[in-house]
Amino acid sequence: MIQTDILIIGAGPTGLFTVFEAGLLKLKCHLIDALPQPGGQLAELYPKKPIYDIPGYPEVLAGDLVTNLMEQIKQFQPGFTLGETAETIDKLEDGSFIVTTNKGTQHHAKAIAIAGGLGTFEPRKPLLKDVEFYEKEDRGIEYFVKDPELFRNKKIVISGGGDSALDWSIFLSDVASEVTLVHRRNEFRGALDSVEKVQELKNEGKIKLITPAEVVGFKGSERIESVDIEINGARMNIETDYFIPLFGLTPKLGAIANWGLEIEKNAIKVNNALDYQTNIEGIYAIGDVNTYPGKLKLILCGFHEATLMCQSVYNRLNPGKKYVLKYTTVSGVDGFDGTRKEAEKAVVKSIE
Amino acid sequence: MIQTDILIIGAGPTGLFTVFEAGLLKLKCHLIDALPQPGGQLAELYPKKPIYDIPGYPEVLAGDLVTNLMEQIKQFQPGFTLGETAETIDKLEDGSFIVTTNKGTQHHAKAIAIAGGLGTFEPRKPLLKDVEFYEKEDRGIEYFVKDPELFRNKKIVISGGGDSALDWSIFLSDVASEVTLVHRRNEFRGALDSVEKVQELKNEGKIKLITPAEVVGFKGSERIESVDIEINGARMNIETDYFIPLFGLTPKLGAIANWGLEIEKNAIKVNNALDYQTNIEGIYAIGDVNTYPGKLKLILCGFHEATLMCQSVYNRLNPGKKYVLKYTTVSGVDGFDGTRKEAEKAVVKSIE
Ligand SMILES: Cc1cc2nc3c(=O)[nH]c(=O)nc-3n(C[C@H](O)[C@H](O)[C@H](O)COP(=O)(O)OP(=O)(O)OC[C@H]3O[C@@H](n4cnc5c(N)ncnc54)[C@H](O)[C@@H]3O)c2cc1C
Ligand SMILES: Cc1cc2nc3c(=O)[nH]c(=O)nc-3n(C[C@H](O)[C@H](O)[C@H](O)COP(=O)(O)OP(=O)(O)OC[C@H]3O[C@@H](n4cnc5c(N)ncnc54)[C@H](O)[C@@H]3O)c2cc1C
Repeated sequence: MIQTDILIIGAGPTGLFTVFEAGLLKLKCHLIDALPQPGGQLAELYPKKPIYDIPGYPEVLAGDLVTNLMEQIKQFQPGFTLGETAETIDKLEDGSFIVTTNKGTQHHAKAIAIAGGLGTFEPRKPLLKDVEFYEKEDRGIEYFVKDPELFRNKKIVISGGGDSALDWSIFLSDVASEVTLVHRRNEFRGALDSVEKVQELKNEGKIKLITPAEVVGFKGSERIESVDIEINGARMNIETDYFIPLFGLTPKLGAIANWGLEIEKNAIKVNNALDYQTNIEGIYAIGDVNTYPGKLKLILCGFHEATLMCQSVYNRLNPGKKYVLKYTTVSGVDGFDGTRKEAEKAVVKSIE
Repeated sequence: MIQTDILIIGAGPTGLFTVFEAGLLKLKCHLIDALPQPGGQLAELYPKKPIYDIPGYPEVLAGDLVTNLMEQIKQFQPGFTLGETAETIDKLEDGSFIVTTNKGTQHHAKAIAIAGGLGTFEPRKPLLKDVEFYEKEDRGIEYFVKDPELFRNKKIVISGGGDSALDWSIFLSDVASEVTLVHRRNEFRGALDSVEKVQELKNEGKIKLITPAEVVGFKGSERIESVDIEINGARMNIETDYFIPLFGLTPKLGAIANWGLEIEKNAIKVNNALDYQTNIEGIYAIGDVNTYPGKLKLILCGFHEATLMCQSVYNRLNPGKKYVLKYTTVSGVDGFDGTRKEAEKAVVKSIE
């Protein structure tokens, strides 16, 4: 069982920054995220887009912000359970919690920070017969590229016409033995350089393009062996090891909605007048996932909420101990990894 | 009379970022600050020191953070009244306000954001006879270097043993015709390179050093003509145009404390459950200057408070109009200066 002080559900910007603020208070954190990588919406939905309202950053790419947050929290050695969804929670008699994921991984923590954003990203699935069968573990349908190595030297068919379809086709053209991109229109919608790169790879024969077309069926007994494609009313069948439909994601609050928390407008109600705690003591909700009067779903708000929440957790876990706020500039930052960041010290030195 | 939507008292990080969030809502801002430069504590007290807890910045120098904030808000063309202290406030019948500074400058605004931090910085003054006389406008005592040009080709005596005394001695050695640094100890306390630089300039004869010594009196009828210095029990007198005592700063809430606002622990009570408004409708308090249960005097908290406050101002000024939050990444940022920042647009393009 994984043991930690604060278990953070959701490794978006809010969850990540929580690790830093908790670390300053000597509290250890572990994060669970359904996605294969940290960064939440920023990493999954718009990593290459600029954000203009992060204070002190006239402009920062979403992906770079995630990289910087990861760098900032490194000293506090957060643990990660990635690619798993937090499903059930149990409150123990001593006030601590056990959270179990869809894969059965158990986490025991003194406090819970739900930083789940808009929820887990559910892929839009193709409405085809046998999808339920082939989407089971390694039978050939994959909705996320969790680990590109899965596709090393395999034949893959990607379907979709947006950024994800373009970008993964480009990326996997170097990994897979054969990449076929199927889209129901001739036009793709995405960053200009992505569209141009796919055009180039197509010209070089590194990506096969089939448009306007749709995958309409699968063949294979144990797992996918080929897909049926409809093109201009005609049918063709092409051999493949994997089919990766990239039709977009819809966030769903999911299992968390059944944890006994007060829910309003698909978000968790919290006490914003104090510490962003929910109606269950010891469970906090921060970032996009919470709601309160005047709530704004902005990255910078999650940072503040995380910071105040950590103080509250500290006070709960250290009753009677008075915490005196220390400035990082003045006191430095002592990592759990033994490293220390600190401002250059003033010297006291005579001038002759 | 200066006209604006939101008058911000205090140009620290909180006040500065307010300009950006207000700008996104098409509200114009004007800032008043008692200091000669924007940046608040960061610029005045620790510009060359690193901060480690700005989200997304593993490390940033306080001065660089101020520079970045100034760059970020540039598009929204904030006005500045610098080197003046907001002293009185009058609420007009239509709910708007007039704020007048110690120099009589008047500002008319629809809403007031007090972002005054710990207050204005009051210099620790030398306990000497005639100080009150010579500290009057241009009679020779200056507690701040508001405009270095004042000292161009003048003789100056600086007193103090910390970073300010060291750094201004270094800077002004290129401006003034003669710089004398007086300190009551031989040892200085500051950044190593500042101490070393003063040593170097002293060796080159560009700074005169008198230690361990103290300025104990002034001579001059209209203005300072010379200062008396006590060194090892002996006395000397040296000619000078200016005396700049740099003995540190103490923040004082000052006149704002008499505006009828609820004050607690030297800070202004606000409604943190909604919008950081004070007990007077239309006057908000954000950043270090406010207090509420769980308040942390941190830069990142001021950013969040500023953001929620701007929404509240928007709603007050646009009753009945429903504001829909727009992401900067998606909608871009339209400056009041006609510039536009925006993410590269997706193209819709066929691949042949
Ligand atoms: C296109 C776009 C542009 C945007 N532009 C801006 C902008 O300019 N400025 C701005 O401030 N904001 C912007 N936003 C909003 C911003 O991305 C969100 O405010 C931010 O991502 C919220 O961070 P978070 O950490 O609270 O949640 P998220 O980033 O949503 O992260 C939540 C994470 O929790 C995980 N999760 C949820 N439930 C579970 C579970 N049960 N088990 C395991 N994991 C779970 C999810 O997989 C996800 O990774 C934009 C959003 C989009 C989509
Ligand atoms: C040495 C040191 C290290 C620090 N390290 C950190 C750190 O690592 N992390 C962190 O988050 N915080 C740190 N802080 C605290 C941080 O500097 C403050 O939280 C921050 O400056 C508050 O910003 P503000 O804009 O609210 O107020 P301030 O920065 O205090 O700015 C307020 C401004 O208002 C002006 N003002 C006040 N009253 C009036 C008036 N009546 N008329 C005109 N002008 C007025 C003042 O002149 C001042 O410029 C540190 C502080 C110090 C001193």
